[in-house]
Amino acid sequence: MSLVGFGAVGQGLARLLLTQRERLQREYDLDIRLVSVANSRHGCIFAEEGLDIAELLALASQQKALTEAAHTQRWDSALEGIRAIKADVMVEATLTNLRDAEPGLCHIRTALERGMHVVTANKGPIALAARELLQIARTQGVQLRMEATVMAGTPVLSTAFEGMAGTRITAARGIFNGTTNYILSAMAEGREYAEVLADAQALGYAEADPTADVEGYDALAKAMILSALLFEQPLTVEQVTRTGITGVSREQVAQASEEGKRIKLIASVRRHESGKVEASVEPVALPLSDALAHVNGAMNAITFESEALAKVTVIGPGAGGIETGQGLLTDILAIARS
Amino acid sequence: MSLVGFGAVGQGLARLLLTQRERLQREYDLDIRLVSVANSRHGCIFAEEGLDIAELLALASQQKALTEAAHTQRWDSALEGIRAIKADVMVEATLTNLRDAEPGLCHIRTALERGMHVVTANKGPIALAARELLQIARTQGVQLRMEATVMAGTPVLSTAFEGMAGTRITAARGIFNGTTNYILSAMAEGREYAEVLADAQALGYAEADPTADVEGYDALAKAMILSALLFEQPLTVEQVTRTGITGVSREQVAQASEEGKRIKLIASVRRHESGKVEASVEPVALPLSDALAHVNGAMNAITFESEALAKVTVIGPGAGGIETGQGLLTDILAIARS
Repeated sequence: MSLVGFGAVGQGLARLLLTQRERLQREYDLDIRLVSVANSRHGCIFAEEGLDIAELLALASQQKALTEAAHTQRWDSALEGIRAIKADVMVEATLTNLRDAEPGLCHIRTALERGMHVVTANKGPIALAARELLQIARTQGVQLRMEATVMAGTPVLSTAFEGMAGTRITAARGIFNGTTNYILSAMAEGREYAEVLADAQALGYAEADPTADVEGYDALAKAMILSALLFEQPLTVEQVTRTGITGVSREQVAQASEEGKRIKLIASVRRHESGKVEASVEPVALPLSDALAHVNGAMNAITFESEALAKVTVIGPGAGGIETGQGLLTDILAIARS
Repeated sequence: MSLVGFGAVGQGLARLLLTQRERLQREYDLDIRLVSVANSRHGCIFAEEGLDIAELLALASQQKALTEAAHTQRWDSALEGIRAIKADVMVEATLTNLRDAEPGLCHIRTALERGMHVVTANKGPIALAARELLQIARTQGVQLRMEATVMAGTPVLSTAFEGMAGTRITAARGIFNGTTNYILSAMAEGREYAEVLADAQALGYAEADPTADVEGYDALAKAMILSALLFEQPLTVEQVTRTGITGVSREQVAQASEEGKRIKLIASVRRHESGKVEASVEPVALPLSDALAHVNGAMNAITFESEALAKVTVIGPGAGGIETGQGLLTDILAIARS
């Protein structure tokens, strides 16, 4: 296995590979050897016989360069490494970029073209180029899996494609951003937006620049992914109606509570009978009869509407290094199974 | 495909095969031919080239015998049919019997021993004999799948084994019986147990003899299935602590509401560090912070606790002919995929 990206998510997966190694061998008969790791700052390191994961995690925790790892071959960039190395599976865990999806898009395209299975936690390439990438994967006879791109390791895509196989999913609505849900949940308890945001930043839930979260772009990326995968209808950023939560006042939240409702930032994709797909991200006042109304704090959730099963809701964590690493691991195991 | 059992569930699957045929061919490249159908009253009918599903559904809706179907070969019992016919997949959808799991157990054992994959909605054989049956399936190199035994077609077992593959599930707690949840939900609105039960019986949600539901035996069967599959620890009926809802008074329900709680019939299985499994079915007053507290009416839900993902909850339908048929169809597609 090759790992590209060694931030919280890449390290989360590495930690699982280290701590779960024995159990994965016993229960899944799988011995995962990590032969290369790359990040954007230090380039790519490689060791045919497998890297020492504990050493890499120690270097990362000490803010040291990966290239300080002993007995490794090196390339200056991740892409050079991907071009030179042939692993069974490449894992892409670099940061999401919704403008042009780079550098992740290039990493994934190159790996697929070289005949490697790809597992990604990076939302950009799937939101913007799912169709192209899946086509390359089909041509090459390899798999491209992306469970970790929506709600981290909480099973969402596997639920839609495997758990609910056979029924037609007509819509998906969800809470896909923990930061905004944390803020709205705290506002429902009477607090002010600015104050809660500052708290969330102090706790590390929100970035110093919270735009991607509070303006709804992170949730929008997931709506784009769901439309591309569930309905095979890729959307551009502009095709998704988007309203963030910066305009939601404490009074609106209180008003909703009085009406027995909860305001949530809901991302929604729906395929109409005509085939037309409608997608939006916006604050919605949900009645308490809606399972999503009770999803509080940093938790995420999705409700699928389908022909045979009416509504199926999955609630779980939507972020975190270990949680997202778990989503990558699930996909790796699915590839190993097939 | 062979279908044994042609009540609500068997007919639900047949209806899906009929209405979804074209879509299953297009999206899954799968043409499912139903070659035999059996039930306990009329025996087994067979047609090599495939039975006319619309004709069978019409006979059933007119309360006529399956054996009236034209141009079919016949056997007096389901078991004789299973012994004579070789289909790729046998679907078992006869009624659950928690005493000795028959006749389903015999049907499944025979089909597996004859090298057929088996998909079951019948809880008895899995609750009582999962280990033996899975062992036969392994020996024969075929699959035994049972998604429909827990929460109908709502993805529960596929979530545990495929969607959450790689993490260790330590506990599962859920609302697995729609009748009792309907009754408790109505009691939370101030109604009396006896009155709501009578309503549920009139609506067809509850049986004339409601013991299996209200005394917790149906939920218990699902706890037994979860322990056998998640923890590979089969339990006997006696090993599961069981309290039904007949002793729950309107006052207790009101008292819980005052404390900000909701009483639900919770089935729970938990594996302790020592390996010991604890299982129970009992009314529990849940705080509103618990996702299960908000699952009302006939809906079912399960919360998995796992190492990497903390809590993941799935909410969806837990009964119904089409919904359970959908669970069978999902399993058939999983077998076709592999």
